[in-house]
Amino acid sequence: MLVVMQHGARAAEIDRVVQVINEMGYEARPMPGAQRTAIGVVGNDGRVDSSRLAALSGVAQIIHVTQPYKQVSREWRPESTVVTIAPGVTFGGTEVPVVAGPCSVESEKQILEAAHAARAAGATALRGGAFKPRSSPYSFQGLGKQGLALLVKAREETGLPIVTEAMDDEGAHLVAEVADCIQIGARNMQNYSLLKTVGRIGKPVLLKRGMAATINDLLLSAEYILSEGNDKVILCERGVRTFDTSTRNMLDLTAIPTVQKLSHLPIVADPSHGTGIRERVAPMARAAVAAGADGILVEMHPHPDVARSDGAQSLYPEQLASLMRELRAVAIAIGRRISDTP
Amino acid sequence: MLVVMQHGARAAEIDRVVQVINEMGYEARPMPGAQRTAIGVVGNDGRVDSSRLAALSGVAQIIHVTQPYKQVSREWRPESTVVTIAPGVTFGGTEVPVVAGPCSVESEKQILEAAHAARAAGATALRGGAFKPRSSPYSFQGLGKQGLALLVKAREETGLPIVTEAMDDEGAHLVAEVADCIQIGARNMQNYSLLKTVGRIGKPVLLKRGMAATINDLLLSAEYILSEGNDKVILCERGVRTFDTSTRNMLDLTAIPTVQKLSHLPIVADPSHGTGIRERVAPMARAAVAAGADGILVEMHPHPDVARSDGAQSLYPEQLASLMRELRAVAIAIGRRISDTP
Amino acid sequence: MLVVMQHGARAAEIDRVVQVINEMGYEARPMPGAQRTAIGVVGNDGRVDSSRLAALSGVAQIIHVTQPYKQVSREWRPESTVVTIAPGVTFGGTEVPVVAGPCSVESEKQILEAAHAARAAGATALRGGAFKPRSSPYSFQGLGKQGLALLVKAREETGLPIVTEAMDDEGAHLVAEVADCIQIGARNMQNYSLLKTVGRIGKPVLLKRGMAATINDLLLSAEYILSEGNDKVILCERGVRTFDTSTRNMLDLTAIPTVQKLSHLPIVADPSHGTGIRERVAPMARAAVAAGADGILVEMHPHPDVARSDGAQSLYPEQLASLMRELRAVAIAIGRRISDTP
Amino acid sequence: MLVVMQHGARAAEIDRVVQVINEMGYEARPMPGAQRTAIGVVGNDGRVDSSRLAALSGVAQIIHVTQPYKQVSREWRPESTVVTIAPGVTFGGTEVPVVAGPCSVESEKQILEAAHAARAAGATALRGGAFKPRSSPYSFQGLGKQGLALLVKAREETGLPIVTEAMDDEGAHLVAEVADCIQIGARNMQNYSLLKTVGRIGKPVLLKRGMAATINDLLLSAEYILSEGNDKVILCERGVRTFDTSTRNMLDLTAIPTVQKLSHLPIVADPSHGTGIRERVAPMARAAVAAGADGILVEMHPHPDVARSDGAQSLYPEQLASLMRELRAVAIAIGRRISDTP
Repeated sequence: MLVVMQHGARAAEIDRVVQVINEMGYEARPMPGAQRTAIGVVGNDGRVDSSRLAALSGVAQIIHVTQPYKQVSREWRPESTVVTIAPGVTFGGTEVPVVAGPCSVESEKQILEAAHAARAAGATALRGGAFKPRSSPYSFQGLGKQGLALLVKAREETGLPIVTEAMDDEGAHLVAEVADCIQIGARNMQNYSLLKTVGRIGKPVLLKRGMAATINDLLLSAEYILSEGNDKVILCERGVRTFDTSTRNMLDLTAIPTVQKLSHLPIVADPSHGTGIRERVAPMARAAVAAGADGILVEMHPHPDVARSDGAQSLYPEQLASLMRELRAVAIAIGRRISDTP
Repeated sequence: MLVVMQHGARAAEIDRVVQVINEMGYEARPMPGAQRTAIGVVGNDGRVDSSRLAALSGVAQIIHVTQPYKQVSREWRPESTVVTIAPGVTFGGTEVPVVAGPCSVESEKQILEAAHAARAAGATALRGGAFKPRSSPYSFQGLGKQGLALLVKAREETGLPIVTEAMDDEGAHLVAEVADCIQIGARNMQNYSLLKTVGRIGKPVLLKRGMAATINDLLLSAEYILSEGNDKVILCERGVRTFDTSTRNMLDLTAIPTVQKLSHLPIVADPSHGTGIRERVAPMARAAVAAGADGILVEMHPHPDVARSDGAQSLYPEQLASLMRELRAVAIAIGRRISDTP
Repeated sequence: MLVVMQHGARAAEIDRVVQVINEMGYEARPMPGAQRTAIGVVGNDGRVDSSRLAALSGVAQIIHVTQPYKQVSREWRPESTVVTIAPGVTFGGTEVPVVAGPCSVESEKQILEAAHAARAAGATALRGGAFKPRSSPYSFQGLGKQGLALLVKAREETGLPIVTEAMDDEGAHLVAEVADCIQIGARNMQNYSLLKTVGRIGKPVLLKRGMAATINDLLLSAEYILSEGNDKVILCERGVRTFDTSTRNMLDLTAIPTVQKLSHLPIVADPSHGTGIRERVAPMARAAVAAGADGILVEMHPHPDVARSDGAQSLYPEQLASLMRELRAVAIAIGRRISDTP
Repeated sequence: MLVVMQHGARAAEIDRVVQVINEMGYEARPMPGAQRTAIGVVGNDGRVDSSRLAALSGVAQIIHVTQPYKQVSREWRPESTVVTIAPGVTFGGTEVPVVAGPCSVESEKQILEAAHAARAAGATALRGGAFKPRSSPYSFQGLGKQGLALLVKAREETGLPIVTEAMDDEGAHLVAEVADCIQIGARNMQNYSLLKTVGRIGKPVLLKRGMAATINDLLLSAEYILSEGNDKVILCERGVRTFDTSTRNMLDLTAIPTVQKLSHLPIVADPSHGTGIRERVAPMARAAVAAGADGILVEMHPHPDVARSDGAQSLYPEQLASLMRELRAVAIAIGRRISDTP
């Protein structure tokens, strides 16, 4: 349950609500927001008699939240959240941005070439990893800080905003200094310390679904970020692990309308990790847009054959250009449009 | 490995090839076709030295098949197979048919109402079960033969061809007498006796993917039908079982381009069983068409609230009409078109 | 809900109960049993007011069954069912039988050698397939009727009862003529026509869990057999399909205590299919007995290297003998004992 | 590939090997160990010609490692590793320790009562979480530092060594100061920053398998710890996520012999999280010991009904005492023994 205070409710009114919640045997969690303060009522499994709270001074509304997550739910906020990562680059509205780029930043030459190719193809933002979570400690782990500097250079040259991954608290602060959007990878979806850190940093966050995470788990992880006061969260479907090995993961596109029903947060799709095979990327990107995705994340490398990671699923630059044309047609067919290059 | 004989190869030439295969220690499986006879070489795990066979009289070509399935593979037949279930109703070409109707045939009134609504909405064929495989022996098991008779009446009134399920040998013969296409359900995908039976009957077959079947398993099951001489097989993705319970099944749309890469057979999608939730059906049907599906199977009931099975995932007639408009737009965006009502 | 009639209830009393159930708006399903007739009340999702039924003449008891399955539940029959497949060979009591033998019957020499080795090692029954469900139509499909005749010969020579698989109605009748227990394989767990057939035949049935079947699905499939009047059903855990490919399947040993809690039917484990790797069979067979399995099904071949199917998971005869010693020690540690050779 | 240097190899010899590896086009990763220095050769997908390296001064042996993980493999170290967390408490030898205790440390009274009950029942070590990773930010998150202090008090009173979880770098250092073994939970199995941190700290680590982690993934995560110079790693099977919801997770006991075949590290089982249901814990703990587990982790709470987390899967103290008796009998049956209380 959430007790929503009126605009300009006084501290004494808020304190009184907290006190009454405690007297009723529950725990009160005040969540100050830009517009209004809400007070979560924790510890209630069933339905609470809210009449006593509704009558208190300064209380605007009582919201009964039936889901385990609260602030991410549509019950809490009926209108869709639009997350802006850079001027004109928004997720969750009518426009559908395409974020393209290599799996890893490998060298200045590579990332600049990739960024120019992404821009030429019409992509809206640039992706590329400086810190890489790899299953094996012996695989390429990314260029680290140097990689971040190269991403900044690529943004300066092309104007494309940057989305890049952070793997730990220290990295999150480094990434936050330069990136436009901090990516949390699938393996860290339930790294709650990291989620709280990016919640407190306040920059836009792209949160990828874990390999065996239910939709419920994904929304609960997003709730960790919102509960720290940061609602600029973009969710990402990138495939889950199942019994079928014919693709790297199983891309669960139904997650898109399911999340949009349950939550006000935008959700994008990553058909590159979702399939792991270059020639599956285009049909599944089209399908994601048709299903209503609020954005597409796609791997493109200027020279996939020599990529240090994920070469097999990276598009060639000309394939990205061709895909952009297909996506524009599908988006229009369902009444949306692919974002312009900024 | 397949030894493909020339057009008009004589029986003696075929016998000689069989004899040589046996001498080489393998088993020969002659598969007479409309155009040419092929002889499968079974029992070879690795690569066979084919020079001796290639030199025999009447041999046109040797095909090395790298997959466990043979006749369903694109290596065996590079061009896509177009399956015609009724005049003008084809799967696997440019046109994309929509097969709509209730889960079960419940009464004359219900199926006729459903058939007229399907036709009015622009669907190409009618679905509806007379024999229903249900997890519980106490659930409604279908009207049986009476249900088949009602489907025939619905076809007479609307002109829509019929797709309906068979669950065993006896039922397959009953269905084959009246239906335009015999459906094999997910639970029977590895009922090999039934697959052989419908292979011998020779009517078009719609083969649904099993709940935990890999793409490889699905194609091997189709191979059972083709190996009996029936290549009129339409595959169907209808969702698989995973850890996430937020939808009834997980619709694996990547199966569509994967199957189209590996096999010449058409593949359709069933977003009704694939999601289990009415409001997820439209976005996932659009996504399936965008991914390249060769057809859509969708549940629609004139009165879903009183349906005897699958009511929660059945569209209302007006929702089907609206979906048809959406699908037409998406199909055109990718250079295909939704089939006309016959 | 089940209405249990008194011993010797008259037909008129039963008819009256059926009539009242119908008047109440439900469907009545009389299930005559050896001891008593029960009448299932179908069509009630919630709780039925049973007072009117309880007051009728001849009614002994009303059982509220909270599970979708009824006759297989412990609520319906609290005491464990003991299934006897041959004199002295029982499943579900204190004794734990071991059923050993090759995947397929391949030749007279092979099956007789296997049967003698199984007996020498101390096994209680012989397994071996005459009809083989294989993913590929080109794999060895079993010797059919000839294989059944060889199993009979093996039984005559060793005294071991026979467990062998049936794949369709025709096969079920052939198997029933000679075998002591009819096996239904994982792929046919939801082949409801076949389940009804073996239910009507009345011989003991070993029902294997399907590759993606929940415990609930397994029990519902067993219910199909019991609802035809045959309660001689032995369930079998043989591994399910998951994302991990380090073993052929994932053996779900927790299914054993779970089934024993929910149902009165015995449950055995098959660590051969459950792991697919010879050296994993012994530890998992020990684990199954420690978890409370009512029997063990294990593949043993006199010469695994030349087996026509499942060679990699078949024990050598001396490994079976060694395993039997280990199982005896574990069984005693938990207060049970491995059955003697009959 | 690993180049193993002789005991007492000089720095100049090691440098020369590194230089030659670099000249050959690979990356050299020197890994100094207590007994010998090994130099990993990274970047070789196929087989390297090792003759040039084998001839260098100071080289003892070349090991070709066929797995993606190296130092955790049995190829790298054939004898089993025995991890000692406190005097007399070892994992990986003949003795099988039982680690018991509540999910969370809740209060001084609770943890002391639990520790005394664990000791009285014969457990070897105490578990209990001070930092709790919870799916929801609104669930109880543990007592933090205060919880660690209470665990120390419980150890002082009972002599039981402590196993407790760390969730991030800061927490790892706090836990390392007081605990005998640092637990890494399933959600953090691929938190590589945390794995490197506990690798550098050097204390014994209990690494739990992730919810969708393959055996290969688990061993690669352990490799992260060993590659930082810490080989005191105990692996833990705690159930994975599948389609069946009849238990909380699916306990994959086959992981035990599989890991023991592939790696020299000990592996324990956690039947409490593996099943999630109190009455399934005892049969699965017995099964784990029978399968060869090197230890058992079990949740026990003095008053499960009021537990702040995991009450439904926590044993009552008297159930733990009864389980210990059963485990002793099973361990003896397979030639091992349950450890004594220290």
